[in-house]
Order: sequence, then C-alpha cells, then structure tokens
Amino acid sequence: MPHYNLCFIGFGNVARALVRLLERKRGLLKSQYGFTYSITGIATGSHGYAVNPGGIDAAEALELAESRQSILPLSSSRVQNSLEVIRNSNAHVMFENSPVNHHTGQPAIDHVRAALEAGQHVITANKGTVVHGNRELTQLAKSKGKKFLFESTVLGGAPVFSVFRETFPLAELQSFKGILNATTNLILSRMENGETFEEAVKYCQSIGIAETDPSADVDGWDAAIKVAALVTVLMDASQPITPEQVNPTGIRGITNEMIAKAKAEGKRYKLVCSAEKVGDTVQASVAPELVDSSSPLYGITNSSSGVTFRTDVLPDYSITVTEREGMQGGPVETAYGLFADFVNAVK
Amino acid sequence: MPHYNLCFIGFGNVARALVRLLERKRGLLKSQYGFTYSITGIATGSHGYAVNPGGIDAAEALELAESRQSILPLSSSRVQNSLEVIRNSNAHVMFENSPVNHHTGQPAIDHVRAALEAGQHVITANKGTVVHGNRELTQLAKSKGKKFLFESTVLGGAPVFSVFRETFPLAELQSFKGILNATTNLILSRMENGETFEEAVKYCQSIGIAETDPSADVDGWDAAIKVAALVTVLMDASQPITPEQVNPTGIRGITNEMIAKAKAEGKRYKLVCSAEKVGDTVQASVAPELVDSSSPLYGITNSSSGVTFRTDVLPDYSITVTEREGMQGGPVETAYGLFADFVNAVK
Repeated sequence: MPHYNLCFIGFGNVARALVRLLERKRGLLKSQYGFTYSITGIATGSHGYAVNPGGIDAAEALELAESRQSILPLSSSRVQNSLEVIRNSNAHVMFENSPVNHHTGQPAIDHVRAALEAGQHVITANKGTVVHGNRELTQLAKSKGKKFLFESTVLGGAPVFSVFRETFPLAELQSFKGILNATTNLILSRMENGETFEEAVKYCQSIGIAETDPSADVDGWDAAIKVAALVTVLMDASQPITPEQVNPTGIRGITNEMIAKAKAEGKRYKLVCSAEKVGDTVQASVAPELVDSSSPLYGITNSSSGVTFRTDVLPDYSITVTEREGMQGGPVETAYGLFADFVNAVK
Repeated sequence: MPHYNLCFIGFGNVARALVRLLERKRGLLKSQYGFTYSITGIATGSHGYAVNPGGIDAAEALELAESRQSILPLSSSRVQNSLEVIRNSNAHVMFENSPVNHHTGQPAIDHVRAALEAGQHVITANKGTVVHGNRELTQLAKSKGKKFLFESTVLGGAPVFSVFRETFPLAELQSFKGILNATTNLILSRMENGETFEEAVKYCQSIGIAETDPSADVDGWDAAIKVAALVTVLMDASQPITPEQVNPTGIRGITNEMIAKAKAEGKRYKLVCSAEKVGDTVQASVAPELVDSSSPLYGITNSSSGVTFRTDVLPDYSITVTEREGMQGGPVETAYGLFADFVNAVK
C-alpha cells in the first residue's frame, strides 16, 4: 500500500484545517484510494520548524500551534527555515500555505521550486505562485513527473480548475464573468441592509474573512489576482496577465446613498470580475457594476461567490458557491480544495 | 499513436452532432491527446446497418442518414442488427444513442452489455441504461478494464457526473435540488409570458425539444429518471431508486391563472427535482413548487437548467447551464457530453 509523507510550509488556519480534514478522512483514504500518509515536516510563521521522517504526531502539532508554542520539540533534527524543512522532510507532497505576496509571489515560488526539484508534488492555496509562476512551475513539475495544483486559489476550495482540467476536454474558454471576492460581496450586502462601509468592514474582520488592513479586498486586488489566475491557467493567452494589467477598481466609491437608490430600483452593486478573449489577447477587468434581477450575479449575496464560463461547446456554464450555516467559505472549505488536489495528485 | 475504432448504435440527431464535433476537433485530438479515430460501425433506426473495420467515411454517413437513405452501401459485409454491428465493427468504443425506454432501459442495456463483453468502452446519452443497469454495467465494465460513462444523461451534456467523479474526492453528497427538465421549464416561462399550455407545448415541439407526445416531459417522467440517475450514481444508497419510486407530479395542474397570481406576487412555479439522504435511504421528489426571487431556482428560466449539491465538505455547490443564442441545450450540446466521456475514457 502506497504511503505518502507530507510537509506543510505555512501552518496557519488553512493548513491546520487541512490536517483535521485529512485525519477525519484517513480511513476513507485507505479504504477507497488505498493509501496512507504521515506528516514529516512543518514550517510555521513564528513558532519554529520541525522535521521527522518517522512521522510527526498530528494532534500534538495542532495543539502546539494553536496554543502558540514552539513546535521544535517535535523535530528529530535541527532545521532553521522552510527550505530546510522541504529538503529534510523526506516528503512526497508539499503543501504551500505561506502568506500571499500579490506582487511577486515570493517567497512561496522559491518554496514550490525547491519542493518540485526535490521530487515532491506541490499543492498550494497561494495565488501568488499561480499568477507569477504558473508557466515555469507547471513546466518544472511536468519535467519531474509531479503535479503543481492550486484548486484552493479561486472560489475558496470549490472545484473550478479541476472542472476545466478533467471535465471540459478541448473546450475553448472564450470569456468568464463572476464574483470572485467574497469579502467585498458581503460588505455590499451588509451596506444594502443599512450598515456603513466601516461597520461592514469591521463585521468582516470580526468573522475572520477580512484582514486588519482590508485594502487587498476592498481595492479589488484579491479579485484581480484571481482573474489573473483564471486567465493564466484556463485561457490560452500568448502572454500571462498580471493583477496590475487587470487594473482593478474597488468598492470604496460605492456609497450608502448609491446602494439605497439602486435598491429602490430593484438593483444591486456587485464587484464584477470578467475576462474575454479578443484575438490573441485577453481583456480583463474588475470593477463595480449595477445589476438587476435578470443577472445571474444578482442572486449571489453575502459571502457567496460564483462565475459563469462561456465556451465553444456548451451553453453558459456557471459554478456558484453559496454560504450556508456552518459553511461560509472559511479555512475549512479552502482546506478541502487542498485535500482534493492531494487525492488527485496521487490517486 | 493510438487509434480508436468507433461504432454508433443509434444515429439520430445526437449521434450525428457527435460525429460533426469529432470531425471538428480531429486535429486537436491528435495534437493535444495524441490519438486518431475511425468510424467502423453504424446502426440506424430505420436506414440499415453498416460495418467496415477499414473505416466508414464520416461525411458520406452523415449525408445518407440526413437524406433518409439506406447506409447499406457503406458496409463491407452484411450485418442485420445492432448486436452484429457491435460484434463485427472491431470497435474500441461504442456510443449508445438508441431511443430511451424509461421503464426497462431495453434494448439499450443489451447493447451496452454486448459492447462491454466485446472489450469496448461504452458511452451513452441513454438514461434508461443508468437507471436500470448502472450497477451491473459499471461492474461489468470494471471487470473488463473498460469505462461505462453517461455524462450526457443529465444537464444536456454539461459536466455533472464527471465533476463528482474527478473533482469531489471523498465528498459525501447529502442532498441536491434543482431543475432538470428544460422542456417544462420553458413551458412554464412561456406561460408566464401569456401563452397557454398548449401553445407553449407546440412551441417546444417546433424547436425540437418536446416530442410529439409530450407526456414524458410534462408528467415529470424525464425529470424523475434524471433524479433516479443522480441518486443511483452519486449517492451511496443501499438500494438504487427507480423513476416509479420518485413518483413524479408534472405540470399539467398549473394553470395560467395560478401563474399570473404568482407573478403578481413576484413568484414563479418551477418543476423542482430533489433528493435527500435520510439514514440509509434516499427520499426523492419531482413536483411543482412556488419559488420567490431569493431562491437560486427563480433565475433559471426558459430552457436553462441547474442543480445545487449539498456535501459535507463545502458550501452549497451549484452548476447552472444557461441557454444563449445558438446554444440552447439541443443535440449539439448533448454531443459534447459524449465527446468529453470519450476523451476521458481513452486519455
């Protein structure tokens, strides 16, 4: 029975949710896919590094990380940085979940490169690696006979990239349009119900879906990097597109008065993400738009998100992810995208 | 370079659209997937049978079938029925598109069995084979190292089964809800715009999406067989479910008066398909429901369709297929589901 050693670069909420999900599905991984796994390397942001090719106890690692204690006691030898964890963990699969750098993709790209060079599959929720490194890293992975997968980067762990890769053979993606940033969508929904922008941002921060500095969301950069990732991977453009080229407009210009007026007319503001092939190039945009109830985007409210794909082979195909009690697109759901990539990489 | 011989049992609109799609994508199949194909067997409903292991010319076959002439001149030897076509075509892949029998799945199940026994992959748009034969045929396929695939049976060729198979590993499907019959959805939309039931049915017949006898659609049997197919394949129920057990209620009881009253209240009637796991069993239903604009089904109008899946791992995941000019869920789109299954079976 195959056995896979896993290492985790970045051990925040998403990575820890992934460890819990793996533990919960351990029996099914064995019975339905016929493999087992161990954790052999962990790099945290500020609580140290650990490797143990003999296996790190998952429950202990979770407990130390969550009580903000050093994980050093779990290590069988001394390692001092992420690259050493990658190289000394004897891992078959590396999960890259270090913080995103929207502008360069570093240091995550270096981590991915090192893991692929070491013959590891790489699974990441880090959008920067896709936008700034997709071509090089995918090629490197291929040359090593390994996978570089990143399902969790868009739509919070729900299948999108794998839907195209596995279920749309030879379909040509001509355009897409959707809502890709859940935080701004929730802010706009709450403003529609009377909250000010500041109150809505504060709420998003309180439930953990907006950062202390909410600029990446509200100024459209998170949406732009997702548009760039979808274009780069799914549209066969001659040049990859950067978030700067998408040149997003955020939602700071949308006032409560504008929203109230729209509501009275049966309309809603949405931060609309779109891209369209025009000849050899792709025109992409992120900007607020007023939509009415005939638009499929109108019904995507709160922290839900979704995207409609236009191809040469089918009517418009939409994927929508709708929040529900206990399932609101947080770390637990992002973790499922990493889990699915892992199974698909090794099955 | 691998070469696949294809045989077609049933050569109506869908099968012929598939042949055209294959011809259009022939170059890409070779350049991107590295294989070629020939047509080596065809069984038509009323214009005869042909086999030629050396290859049947696609253009000639299409022309004869569409001008309602016998295809016998294309045959290199005498064959008299579908089973002989399967056994004498030297095929690697059989496409089953004979007429659906909702109650027994025959004779399509016999065709599928014969092809699998002969070592052929089987791809079908025939819902009867899935509902009445899924377990046996999937097992037989597995024992022969072949695939039995049926993406086109639900949502008209758009990816659904393959989305679950390939992109939702170890997710437990707890329930689903959606609109699976495009014809009744179009009838209800047209009645909302003032047409009588009879006028709306006539329109659907004129564009080829309703049969001369529209009962299978309007009494809910087509929807029920699709519900049964989704339950049988995607939910791990201890017993497969039959369309009779779904016991559908159709749309004949919905009058123009009821629709006008609903419209005045901002509501719409929809033929809602649903299923839910309850313990070891599945409760399934097809029945008209009044929905308002907060429902994701409200915005699915005309010949569009869609379904929302609830799993243990993600927020609700919806797939919606929305008609647009030139892409209305007819044979061309159904053919793409067969095409995708073919690529997935042999890649």
